[in-house]
Amino acid sequence: MSVVIGIAGGSGSGKTTVQRQIIDVFGSDRIALLDHDSYYVDLSHLPPEERAGFNFDHPDALETNLMVAHLDRLLAGEPIEKPTYDFTTHSRRTETETVYPHPVVIVEGILVLGEPELRKRMDVKLFVDAPDDVRLIRRIQRDMHERGRDIEAVLQQYQHTVRPMHLEFVEPSKRHADVIIPHGGHNRVALDMVLAHVQRTLTRAEA
Amino acid sequence: MSVVIGIAGGSGSGKTTVQRQIIDVFGSDRIALLDHDSYYVDLSHLPPEERAGFNFDHPDALETNLMVAHLDRLLAGEPIEKPTYDFTTHSRRTETETVYPHPVVIVEGILVLGEPELRKRMDVKLFVDAPDDVRLIRRIQRDMHERGRDIEAVLQQYQHTVRPMHLEFVEPSKRHADVIIPHGGHNRVALDMVLAHVQRTLTRAEA
Repeated sequence: MSVVIGIAGGSGSGKTTVQRQIIDVFGSDRIALLDHDSYYVDLSHLPPEERAGFNFDHPDALETNLMVAHLDRLLAGEPIEKPTYDFTTHSRRTETETVYPHPVVIVEGILVLGEPELRKRMDVKLFVDAPDDVRLIRRIQRDMHERGRDIEAVLQQYQHTVRPMHLEFVEPSKRHADVIIPHGGHNRVALDMVLAHVQRTLTRAEA
Repeated sequence: MSVVIGIAGGSGSGKTTVQRQIIDVFGSDRIALLDHDSYYVDLSHLPPEERAGFNFDHPDALETNLMVAHLDRLLAGEPIEKPTYDFTTHSRRTETETVYPHPVVIVEGILVLGEPELRKRMDVKLFVDAPDDVRLIRRIQRDMHERGRDIEAVLQQYQHTVRPMHLEFVEPSKRHADVIIPHGGHNRVALDMVLAHVQRTLTRAEA
């Protein structure tokens, strides 16, 4: 028996921080991680100039069906081969990552609470929240420092796809959350609550 | 040692439901309840026609200092005499209610997260959230059925004080919450998380 924790929230909201803290407590050897980003559709059939302009924040950019199938196999106790994605060429790599079944499965991504098939498999639905400008600051810093983009490209992508898709898909999915975690991931009490609940669910299941 | 749980949220958000469920689990014999509403200032010095028009949703309508002093005494292991309020005459009754110290203290009210002196004494800060129109529906039903008011009076009070004070004081206090609970109180997972956390805090303290 596994506990499935869904972690959603806008770009730059602090999802990764929450996820990392959960992994720290339970140990990476007890957690299977399914991140929606690994399931981006392969764009290798498109000419390179079209790939960069693709709307990566729309639900259709992700192969959610495959993620759901993988989640079901993990829950059935079987390992899966998670796709790996090359963000520079916007294509799926040939190599995959083997993910093994574990007592805790994290399903993470900006859009995971908007997908009914993912949602109904979750035991705990978290939405990590932060003000829009704080999220934009984090996005700028991440994209410039970690991904080497220039500020104009970051802001253009933000205005053209990130922001409208956030308003259309991410923000409305918040209402499906069991709890909303403010402060973007540095919130000890919220995290303790999540961990206490998961721990108790696991203890009950193992008893 | 006591765990202090703050429960805030707008009128009609479902605070009472959350509170009742916490009391059900821990038992009323293990919980001390401090509701902000009991600390409304006495308006018996005002002529009756001015009392009804008073802004009951403004922080100044509440004697928060007294509530803070009472909370400190409960945390020091002493019983307190909680005021009781007569909402028909808008005055404090002569009789009080003895509240005894307990392992769990609930501090409840629309404005409790906006008061720094209350906030810093809380171990868990909850904000119960519901859409504005859903809250209005609940408010209309409660005020008409339980308090015998007519619809025009309810809507007038809502527009004149409830709504502006919500926007000015209640909604901004949400950012102080550790977790925001959507669905207005009928949310089993959120409640289980709160309860698991409180239970664990108590167990640690008793160990």
